[in-house]
Amino acid sequence: MSSSAAILVIGDEILSGRTQDTNTSYIARFLGALGIELKEARVVSDVEDEIVAALNALRARYDFVFTTGGIGPTHDDITADAVAKAFDVGIGYHPEAYALLEARYPPGEFNEMRKRMARIPHGAALVANSVSGAPGFHIGNVYVMAGVPMVMRAMLEAIAPELPRGTQVVSVTVEAAIPEGAIAPGLATIQKAHPATAIGSYPYYRDGIAQPFGAQLVVRGRDPDMVEAAAQAIEVLAREMGAAPQRIKAADSAASK
Amino acid sequence: MSSSAAILVIGDEILSGRTQDTNTSYIARFLGALGIELKEARVVSDVEDEIVAALNALRARYDFVFTTGGIGPTHDDITADAVAKAFDVGIGYHPEAYALLEARYPPGEFNEMRKRMARIPHGAALVANSVSGAPGFHIGNVYVMAGVPMVMRAMLEAIAPELPRGTQVVSVTVEAAIPEGAIAPGLATIQKAHPATAIGSYPYYRDGIAQPFGAQLVVRGRDPDMVEAAAQAIEVLAREMGAAPQRIKAADSAASK
Repeated sequence: MSSSAAILVIGDEILSGRTQDTNTSYIARFLGALGIELKEARVVSDVEDEIVAALNALRARYDFVFTTGGIGPTHDDITADAVAKAFDVGIGYHPEAYALLEARYPPGEFNEMRKRMARIPHGAALVANSVSGAPGFHIGNVYVMAGVPMVMRAMLEAIAPELPRGTQVVSVTVEAAIPEGAIAPGLATIQKAHPATAIGSYPYYRDGIAQPFGAQLVVRGRDPDMVEAAAQAIEVLAREMGAAPQRIKAADSAASK
Repeated sequence: MSSSAAILVIGDEILSGRTQDTNTSYIARFLGALGIELKEARVVSDVEDEIVAALNALRARYDFVFTTGGIGPTHDDITADAVAKAFDVGIGYHPEAYALLEARYPPGEFNEMRKRMARIPHGAALVANSVSGAPGFHIGNVYVMAGVPMVMRAMLEAIAPELPRGTQVVSVTVEAAIPEGAIAPGLATIQKAHPATAIGSYPYYRDGIAQPFGAQLVVRGRDPDMVEAAAQAIEVLAREMGAAPQRIKAADSAASK
């Protein structure tokens, strides 16, 4: 039994192309290691109605929703208000968050905008921020985190003990110097024979070598034996086709499809 | 008058965290240069119903939808079928795509799986692929592209002449070594006084310098004079607060929020 999750990335800077989002892939891997499956990700702009609509769609559909971005002190940080609106609850200073933030600033520097970071929807629990203090929060099945990757990662560590553990998806990646289209028929047969696994094919092109076309064939599934059996079938197929398949670590694979 | 757009990224490899999506930010900047505003991005898995539902939601709402991924020869490439289903049209071999692909392979190597790449929804027009041949396609307001970044970029170039030009959003980034929370009150006042612009604040922390906390303040808008006026107001504010603000190029800014 595994839980499902979605990510909601909030921020004009992602949609303008100014900032490359890296939080989605980090959270995906983090959840994967817990056995929680990321099913969908969305990026919306810093517009309240957009955030509310996306959040309500995602939280109704998945076990958990993780949001990133929009919880800082400036006027464009509107995530907390949007979350309160989505849950139809009030919002105000959270005593613990307020005290925690107040203690961080010299007298007179805890201004009205900084106080915004203590505004938390009613009924939410705080998520600790070991990096920069200002907390995230958790309400219903929604975890609200900062967008700065370093801070987001710290918050995710703080959240982890609360999350259920599921059966991890394991994956084996077999790389073969065979053009994707050539191995595709055999691969489709292997996929049919191994229905408890999902086999993905990610082509690569590498200039300047004898066989520049190849593919990384990724077998994923919750049963390690079934994943191994499918991976071995792919290796047999690749050898039959004259290639010398190799297993590679997921971290080595940067191919996109 | 500007057009709106959404991106639909199709691929288990993004949701598993295996592959870092870079297409979204590339497309965002590409469209931005044409004056087309990216309003939303979604990532869904290689599941037909998920693709259909997301595509129908996005194409109803935005002027253009760009999809990436799932148009290769392997069994997990199901985007063309999903698009046909979303548009409720048939799908079959497109004569031009078929001929183009057939010509690329030695006799006997244009197998059934490679032929899948010639399956195009009825009524769609092809999108040229100068890199690897297998075309994308365009139906209604939806452009279907490959997921491999090199191929996707070539397809985007092929699509560009068909897209309308809007008024570009211009942006000016002012960096100031002032903690975000300290400049936030003045920034909120400037935002109110310059409603035709959107001012975003992206904090940074830089270890080992005298003032490690600062922010990149990004002014965006369609009227260059109004953007410039807001940027100058921010510079005045930063100087009043004792900082020496600098303008930086968007390409230099890697801060996330």
